Amino acid sequence: MDRGTYKLLENFMVCCMKDTAHDKEHVYRVLYHALEIAKTENNVNYDILIAACLLHDIGRKEQFENPALCHAIVGGEKAYQFLLAHGFEVSYAEQVKQCIASHRYRQDNPPQSLEAKILFDADKLDAAGAVGIARTLLYKGIVAEPLYSILPDGSVSTGENDITPSFFQEYKYKLENLYSSFYTKKATTIAKGRQYIASEFYNSLYQEVNSSYQNGTNELENLLKK
Amino acid sequence: MDRGTYKLLENFMVCCMKDTAHDKEHVYRVLYHALEIAKTENNVNYDILIAACLLHDIGRKEQFENPALCHAIVGGEKAYQFLLAHGFEVSYAEQVKQCIASHRYRQDNPPQSLEAKILFDADKLDAAGAVGIARTLLYKGIVAEPLYSILPDGSVSTGENDITPSFFQEYKYKLENLYSSFYTKKATTIAKGRQYIASEFYNSLYQEVNSSYQNGTNELENLLKK
Repeated sequence: MDRGTYKLLENFMVCCMKDTAHDKEHVYRVLYHALEIAKTENNVNYDILIAACLLHDIGRKEQFENPALCHAIVGGEKAYQFLLAHGFEVSYAEQVKQCIASHRYRQDNPPQSLEAKILFDADKLDAAGAVGIARTLLYKGIVAEPLYSILPDGSVSTGENDITPSFFQEYKYKLENLYSSFYTKKATTIAKGRQYIASEFYNSLYQEVNSSYQNGTNELENLLKK
Repeated sequence: MDRGTYKLLENFMVCCMKDTAHDKEHVYRVLYHALEIAKTENNVNYDILIAACLLHDIGRKEQFENPALCHAIVGGEKAYQFLLAHGFEVSYAEQVKQCIASHRYRQDNPPQSLEAKILFDADKLDAAGAVGIARTLLYKGIVAEPLYSILPDGSVSTGENDITPSFFQEYKYKLENLYSSFYTKKATTIAKGRQYIASEFYNSLYQEVNSSYQNGTNELENLLKK
């Protein structure tokens, strides 16, 4: 990719990014992860990969404003239209669009091309380890969701089988399970190296809050009885 | 404290709490920490301590809307007025107010009474360990501040000496240093037990993002040169 094209796509991306959990630094990390993965694969088309990475989250704003929309589908279409409007070939724009449309952590639209699989893995890597924990917490702050739910008996829920959204629910539903979901060997290796800190953090947080509630509610009950 | 008084204060607290980093679960954790600390101290006045814990953050909304206000001062005054309006004695309301006014992590108004010191320590415990990391990240999401700043050379700043607000800046400025700031032995012990996970999380997060930027920016530069 030439420097002019990179700048054109980068500027468009920066204009589209809003919230701090999916800000432009997330996009750069995804791009950098993708380049690291790509080095271990053969016949990567870097023009497609770099464009797809830079533009993969440009549909976030639309999904945030209307949760019925899928940011991957919206973003793919926005990227397609942007590329055509700037004179790129239809087949190129189509391939970038396909990568973006299939980057989401869902079963119904898995990535097909090598570049789509690399983008998928690179994006998922940013949900692994400490950075995945940090981004999820930032996002919970943005959407005003709590760290955990309290069970009817007054104890702290682990998040397992929770219906109410919280950080623990997201950890159990998504973050804990993503380590087996990668397409490339390189991403699997990087993710495995980051799994321990994520799980240690979750376990420590649960232990800290749960012990506090267990001791505290008993102690309070005794004081109020007097 | 009788159950009726507890419910009265609890209901007032719930009405005043807004953001998820300082929500009512934070208040319960502070109360539970305080009761744990109080068990190891002599002659604690639980009527003052419980009221001060429940009402310590009721001035948050005012500070959020006008950052020139100090939530500890505003909260102390709100608690004082609320207690007087509900028939409590002036000296009691005054002591609760003093606890709340001095609970903030600042040098200029240190806690004086035993109950004020316990509230201070209990609140600071909720900024230690994994829960301190989690709450800071939620708050950064709420106020739309990023995880880290990028230095002029393109690398990730550790947060040390940063002027721009970010999670790393807050970690270096406040979270990393609070472990030596407790008044009671019990709080110091609990905090020390939580220090490792907080520091491990920060170190892992820095390593993950910094290595990604270092490799990625070089790789990208080589690709754009071609």
